[in-house]
Amino acid sequence: MNTTVNEEHKTRARAWFQELRDRIIAEFEKIEDEYSGQLSHLPPGRFERKPWTRPGGLRADDGGVISVMKGRVFEKIAVMTSTNLNGTFSPEMAKTIKGADKDPHFWSSSISLVAHMQNPHVPAVHINTRHFMAAETAWFGGGTDLTPMFLNDEDARAFHAALKRACDAHGADYYARYKKWCDEYFYLPHRGEPRGAGGIFYDHMDTGDWEADFAFTRAVGLAFLEVYPHIVRKRMGQPWTEAEREHQLVRRGRYVEFNLLYDRGTQFGLKTGGNVEAILMSMPPEARWP
Amino acid sequence: MNTTVNEEHKTRARAWFQELRDRIIAEFEKIEDEYSGQLSHLPPGRFERKPWTRPGGLRADDGGVISVMKGRVFEKIAVMTSTNLNGTFSPEMAKTIKGADKDPHFWSSSISLVAHMQNPHVPAVHINTRHFMAAETAWFGGGTDLTPMFLNDEDARAFHAALKRACDAHGADYYARYKKWCDEYFYLPHRGEPRGAGGIFYDHMDTGDWEADFAFTRAVGLAFLEVYPHIVRKRMGQPWTEAEREHQLVRRGRYVEFNLLYDRGTQFGLKTGGNVEAILMSMPPEARWP
Repeated sequence: MNTTVNEEHKTRARAWFQELRDRIIAEFEKIEDEYSGQLSHLPPGRFERKPWTRPGGLRADDGGVISVMKGRVFEKIAVMTSTNLNGTFSPEMAKTIKGADKDPHFWSSSISLVAHMQNPHVPAVHINTRHFMAAETAWFGGGTDLTPMFLNDEDARAFHAALKRACDAHGADYYARYKKWCDEYFYLPHRGEPRGAGGIFYDHMDTGDWEADFAFTRAVGLAFLEVYPHIVRKRMGQPWTEAEREHQLVRRGRYVEFNLLYDRGTQFGLKTGGNVEAILMSMPPEARWP
Repeated sequence: MNTTVNEEHKTRARAWFQELRDRIIAEFEKIEDEYSGQLSHLPPGRFERKPWTRPGGLRADDGGVISVMKGRVFEKIAVMTSTNLNGTFSPEMAKTIKGADKDPHFWSSSISLVAHMQNPHVPAVHINTRHFMAAETAWFGGGTDLTPMFLNDEDARAFHAALKRACDAHGADYYARYKKWCDEYFYLPHRGEPRGAGGIFYDHMDTGDWEADFAFTRAVGLAFLEVYPHIVRKRMGQPWTEAEREHQLVRRGRYVEFNLLYDRGTQFGLKTGGNVEAILMSMPPEARWP
C-alpha cells in the first residue's frame, strides 16, 4: 500500500465530492429562482449547510457537511458529504474485505443526496457515490435512481440515456450490469414493486486502474447533474391536483418502506450508532398510508 | 395433546377475540357519534369489515377479518382478527418451540388493533392478544401500549392503573414483569427514545392452567376497553393548533420507524409473504420527517 498515492487519492476524491455538491447546490438554487408555477408565492429555497459528526468516529473531525433545502420546487432535499470518515469494519464486514481481517481500519469520503419534490409530476431522485480505502484495497461505489410518482416513460428514458452514455464511455458492459444491479437492489419484495424507474448501482469497483474508476465515478455525478435538472425544468411547470398530491404521498410511503425495511446503509447506520439525522435525511417530508 | 380439549379451546379463544372486536367497534362508533369538537362537521366514522386471507395459508379459510374506520375522532383505526390461522413454523422458529421440530404445524387466533387519532391530544394506542397452539404446547401472548403525542402523565397513569388492576388479579408479579417487557420492546435504540408511555407485553404464557391464562388475556382486553375510551372521551374535546398537528405527524414518523425497523411481527410478516395490507394496517395515515 503506497501511502503517498493514497493520500493524493483521498484528497482528489474528497475534492470531487465537494465540487459535485457545490455544483448541484448552485444548479438547484437556480431552479428555485427560475420557478414560476404553483406555490411560486413561496420564497425560493436556499440550502443551509451544517457540519455533522459521527458519534462512533475515531477522530474528532470524522464527519462532513449536511446541506438541506426546503424550497418551492424541492420540497425537501438533503445533500450529505462525508469528507473524512475514519472507522473500523465490524468483524463480520471485515471478513468480506481483503486484508481487513488483519487491519480493519477504513477511510471513506462520499456524497449522498435524496430529493423529494413539491410537484407530483417531478420524479424524486437519489444519488450516492463514494470512495473507500481499506488496508490493502480501495474502491468506488454508488449509483443513482429515479422515482417518478406516475408512470412516465419519457423521464425514465432520458434518465437512463444519460446514464448509459456515462457508462458506455468507461466500460462496454457497465450500463447493462449496473442497471441490473439497481433493479435488483431498489425492489420491494413485499409489494412486488420496484422502487421507481431504476438507474444504475455499482459497488466494490476496483478494476486496477484507479484513474479510470475515479473518472467513471465523476462521470456518474456529471450525468446526474446534466439529466436531473433537465427533467425538473421540463416537469415543474405542470399544474397538479389534490388527488395527484395524495397519490404522491402514498408513493412516498413506499419510499419509507424501502428505506427502513431494506436499505442496507440505513439499517446498518441506525443499528450501529450512526448519526440519525444524517442517515434519515432521505426520509420524505410527508408520507401517507391511507 | 388432547385434541378434544384443544378444539374447545380454539372455539372459545376465537369467540373471545371476535367478541372483543365487536365490543371495541361498538364503543368506538359510539364515540364517533358523541363527538362535537373540531372536525365534527365530518360525518361520524363507521367501521368497514372485509375478510382477509394469508397468501401462504395452508387452508382456504386461513385468515380473518380486517375492520377499518376513518372517522372524525379516529383518523385511522384498523382492527384485525385472525379467526383461524393454520401454518407451519419456519425451521428457525421451530427450534425454539417444544415439539415443533417433529411437527411444525401451528394454529392461531388473535386480535390486533392500532388507532391513530385526529386530535394530537388524544394518544395513539395499540393492543394485540393471541392464542397459539403447536403440536405439544399452547400459549397466550399480547399486550397493549399507549403513545401520547405530548408528555401527559395523567393519561399514562390512568392507562397503567387499569393494566395493573387487570394484572394484579391474575398474578402478583405480572404487572412488574410485563410492564418491563413492554418498555424493553417498544424502544427505538437509534433515537434513544421509548415509543410512548408503555403498557404491558407478554408472550409464551403457559402457566399450566389454561383457564387462568385465558382469563388473564380476557382481562387485558377488558382493561383496554375500559381505559382507552375513557382517555379518548376526556381528551377529544380539547382544541388543537396547526403546530400541535405538525408535532403529532412528526411523532407518528417515530411510530413508522419503530414498526418498519424493529417490530418483529411486521418484519417477519413482510419478509415471509404475509398479507401486506393486514400487516401494514398499523401504519399512520400521515407522517412527517421535516
